Amino acid sequence: MSHISNFPKISLVGAGPGDPDLISIKGARTLATAKVILSDTTVNPALLAYTRKSAVTLFTEKLQRQYRYSQADIHILMVRFALTHGHVVRLAGGDPFLFERGHEALEFAAQYGIETAYVPGISSMTSLPGLQGIPLTRHGYADRFWVGTLAPQQVRFSKDLRAAARSGATVVLHVRMQHLPEISALYMDLSRGDTPAAIIQPGTSPDARYGLGRADQLVAIAERHALTSPGIVMLGEVVRLHPQWATREVALTRTWKGDSA
Amino acid sequence: MSHISNFPKISLVGAGPGDPDLISIKGARTLATAKVILSDTTVNPALLAYTRKSAVTLFTEKLQRQYRYSQADIHILMVRFALTHGHVVRLAGGDPFLFERGHEALEFAAQYGIETAYVPGISSMTSLPGLQGIPLTRHGYADRFWVGTLAPQQVRFSKDLRAAARSGATVVLHVRMQHLPEISALYMDLSRGDTPAAIIQPGTSPDARYGLGRADQLVAIAERHALTSPGIVMLGEVVRLHPQWATREVALTRTWKGDSA
Repeated sequence: MSHISNFPKISLVGAGPGDPDLISIKGARTLATAKVILSDTTVNPALLAYTRKSAVTLFTEKLQRQYRYSQADIHILMVRFALTHGHVVRLAGGDPFLFERGHEALEFAAQYGIETAYVPGISSMTSLPGLQGIPLTRHGYADRFWVGTLAPQQVRFSKDLRAAARSGATVVLHVRMQHLPEISALYMDLSRGDTPAAIIQPGTSPDARYGLGRADQLVAIAERHALTSPGIVMLGEVVRLHPQWATREVALTRTWKGDSA
Repeated sequence: MSHISNFPKISLVGAGPGDPDLISIKGARTLATAKVILSDTTVNPALLAYTRKSAVTLFTEKLQRQYRYSQADIHILMVRFALTHGHVVRLAGGDPFLFERGHEALEFAAQYGIETAYVPGISSMTSLPGLQGIPLTRHGYADRFWVGTLAPQQVRFSKDLRAAARSGATVVLHVRMQHLPEISALYMDLSRGDTPAAIIQPGTSPDARYGLGRADQLVAIAERHALTSPGIVMLGEVVRLHPQWATREVALTRTWKGDSA
């Protein structure tokens, strides 16, 4: 039984949050039948162990930086490879339909009558907090969550984040470190500066860095633990469940406005 | 290299949304080293193929119904099995930290000094919409999402759902069909009855039922497609991306108050 064919097909595969063993069995099998892999650079290269030796692997961000490919160029490349080589896998970090451009890719391929498939993955946004010891939901703490990405400068986004911050939902944000002051300011403005907060660095390695504190201390937390962009900010009562919460190392009197002394 | 030992350990493993191949490689490997599996009844029994033949498998809901075990009894059973048998896997649908009681189980085990592990899974709430052709996020449609469960009767929950319904976030709700009128009423009350809506039945089989329509038509959608509890209700502009959106079969003039004629 061979699934290897020259029949044009494009599969969108979720790579999961980092650990190559956190890809699904279906995802690994799909990789094993691909002739060409178009991978995000954020994906753990160890996942390429699941591909055939003869498979062509290209990293899309590298194409974009080095050869100035646009997102549209990459879609065209993907379709061309499907027509010339057969099965193409578009490998995306986490899940391809959560904050990735997966759906656009499938829609583009469908215009050319190419068969498409979607293999979900474990989202980094929903699993990295758990891997650090903080569940997104827990009975008595939170039974709903809100997940967002992008810059809080956007007016509508900021309005939505305010509503989320005011609610009983756990808030999970994919951010760059320069947005931390705005997030702190928003929570302080709502008199919710004392909301338990965590900043988590991407990746599933046991030494992945994180910091714990309060919503009004995000900059201090990032500085203390030398956290870099991008990061996941998590806000809500569930953060208290982290095993190190009681002994968290952050200057509790320091706010995001704190001086550099 | 054998991972099988009598050393007490409790692993919390996410089974994913249904398809046994959508468990992670790590999840399947963890199942293969378990001496006892305490499984949710909602988990696809095909996943037990990953366990050892000699493993003891118990379905927790069955224990609760047949022998009136409480959640606390199941935690005690889990710890006892770890002490007498070695490695116990608590297998939960989707991800154990998203709307499951996974964190309570780990905390209970830790009280007895038993080693614990968390193996995330693909959440049903975030993947079933995608498997039906609707991405939770898409550039230009939504770049954030809100996921909740339980009855909308709760005052605080209802308040949060109102805020979510008003926002730009995709809303995903795990509900029973009797809550559909309340959800429709809430959207209509916000003059958002025309929000695109989908109701999806759990499970990843290709014939999993679903229905498409508007927020003010949830009961009509469920009736027309003979949908049963529990279900996932998805609300937001992204629902328009479903391949059958243009030809959706629902009486467009009928609202949730529609008579039975």
